[in-house]
Amino acid sequence: MNLKQLSNMLALSQTTVSRALNGYPEVSEETRRRVADAAKRHGYRPNPSARRLATGKAGMIGYVMPTGASVDIDPHFVEFLSGLGDYARGHELDLVLSPTAADDEETTYRRIVANKQVDAVYVSSPRPADRRIALLNQLGLPFIVHGRSEGLGFDYPHLDIDNEAGFHDAARLLLQLGHTRVALINGDTSQTFAIFRERGVRRALAASGLALPPARIRSAAMTEEEGFRAAMSLLRGNEPPTAILCSSLMMALGIVRAIRDLGLAVPADVSLVAHDDVFPWLKPENFSVPLTTTRSSIRAAGQRVAERLATRLSGQETEPLGEIWPVDLVVRASIAAAKT
Amino acid sequence: MNLKQLSNMLALSQTTVSRALNGYPEVSEETRRRVADAAKRHGYRPNPSARRLATGKAGMIGYVMPTGASVDIDPHFVEFLSGLGDYARGHELDLVLSPTAADDEETTYRRIVANKQVDAVYVSSPRPADRRIALLNQLGLPFIVHGRSEGLGFDYPHLDIDNEAGFHDAARLLLQLGHTRVALINGDTSQTFAIFRERGVRRALAASGLALPPARIRSAAMTEEEGFRAAMSLLRGNEPPTAILCSSLMMALGIVRAIRDLGLAVPADVSLVAHDDVFPWLKPENFSVPLTTTRSSIRAAGQRVAERLATRLSGQETEPLGEIWPVDLVVRASIAAAKT
Repeated sequence: MNLKQLSNMLALSQTTVSRALNGYPEVSEETRRRVADAAKRHGYRPNPSARRLATGKAGMIGYVMPTGASVDIDPHFVEFLSGLGDYARGHELDLVLSPTAADDEETTYRRIVANKQVDAVYVSSPRPADRRIALLNQLGLPFIVHGRSEGLGFDYPHLDIDNEAGFHDAARLLLQLGHTRVALINGDTSQTFAIFRERGVRRALAASGLALPPARIRSAAMTEEEGFRAAMSLLRGNEPPTAILCSSLMMALGIVRAIRDLGLAVPADVSLVAHDDVFPWLKPENFSVPLTTTRSSIRAAGQRVAERLATRLSGQETEPLGEIWPVDLVVRASIAAAKT
Repeated sequence: MNLKQLSNMLALSQTTVSRALNGYPEVSEETRRRVADAAKRHGYRPNPSARRLATGKAGMIGYVMPTGASVDIDPHFVEFLSGLGDYARGHELDLVLSPTAADDEETTYRRIVANKQVDAVYVSSPRPADRRIALLNQLGLPFIVHGRSEGLGFDYPHLDIDNEAGFHDAARLLLQLGHTRVALINGDTSQTFAIFRERGVRRALAASGLALPPARIRSAAMTEEEGFRAAMSLLRGNEPPTAILCSSLMMALGIVRAIRDLGLAVPADVSLVAHDDVFPWLKPENFSVPLTTTRSSIRAAGQRVAERLATRLSGQETEPLGEIWPVDLVVRASIAAAKT
């Protein structure tokens, strides 16, 4: 059965049937249900080209992807993509990646808007007062931000995890265990997620009358190697930390190596907490000493971002909704009471 | 300066100028050079929409991406994407990912061909007699395979690394060091890359009159956890291996953990060789005992795949060219002579 036959049978126009199947708000709930039932009963599966002609939608979600010799796309991106795909697959949505120079994303956003090649985009790794968000707001292309920005002066749709609370709670637990020299090995602090994590650690320390001096903060690319270097420089310094919080499992691999190379042990000499995006290929419970983590599935975030973009495109989400997910604090063997 | 002004100045049609700038073979080399020089001199930058209208090309490369609860997209994919982006960025090519159920890729290929939404696709993780390659050959959509298939009965464009020679050479070196009980922890053996790796190991062993019995082969997802499990079952068995080859650095992390958990050491008790795709976030030289690897940059492969697709689209590559890259064997501290 094709669209024409289904429409004739229901005595509705093809446009109405198509819009009903795609959840357009101008179609009444009763009609929507009648069309959906008939489509299901007769095994009608919309032809995407026909659907696109009828709805004026490309069926595509865009992502402007910074690349270049100096840009390493993170393995986090794969898990996020998997989640996006989990949702998009069931809804015949495709994803358009537009590679761009990292210092010239604006040109690429303008190009994809001018070409009308996508219906909506998502923005990742936002910074404070992120210019991409301001630009999209001005261009009128539907979008959602994975993460958050600050200081923009307007609301915008976003999905973020509560990085500040997650790192606050982890730091507070280390303080409760008697640690006073707590260090943070963070990601790129020009990005909001890293700023929020640092804020959470500072807030917990401040509540105990402690500070986070520059000598106990490192910021680096989230790789094994950078984790190793940062831990080495912290642990070889004066008054080395007895507890370290870090922003990724990859970094944690390098931190564990540094601790071992220095003849120290987790958690006897150094307690360790890492953020876990729930990768299938590297699990915190499988570290030689199982890792305590702040945990949130980045794959689930990818699913939700795709779902919300689809909801916005169908006109069912119109407010600049901000959605913040709590972060789990999962305690395993890598933390212990400070030596007295 | 726009296309019309440039064309008027050169006294050429807009179509000719556009084709010249996009390397179409029907434009003479002399005209191509004249147009390129004028465009450069006057700072003309083609508008992609106009270019698409003139050339009939979408400027998009497609990838049908298997997803679903049971499918973990591998971190290798990110590095490959980075490479693809490195090339595509400079050529205003976008990449369309079409998520699909892993058991129904054919429907998705048919849909993207019907919708004319991409100019060409690449195929990854090929299997023997891969049905996707046969389908694309039949549908007439330009494509290139990253990897190889066997038993298709026709030639097709591909780019692969020499997995068989790489693993052959690594196994031969272990034999030269006196190892006779060599094990292989492989990836998914329904895929060609894994079949070729096993073939290489078998060939090296056979040349020394040795076999690779089923008890010394494992095949699993390329994760830390699966590497650990496979190594545990091998090392706890009868006549445990004194040398292990494995298919990824992630697996190697788990294998090293298993060796340590059993109170054994690398390389004193077990020599270890892993395949390295050259990830920026995990480097073999940074393992606690630096790893010997078979090495080939998957990011470079991504760049080359994009470049060859662009060359095919411009009509400058028409043969079903098969390109096979050699694999480096990089010796580090993780291998030693067998105990006698």
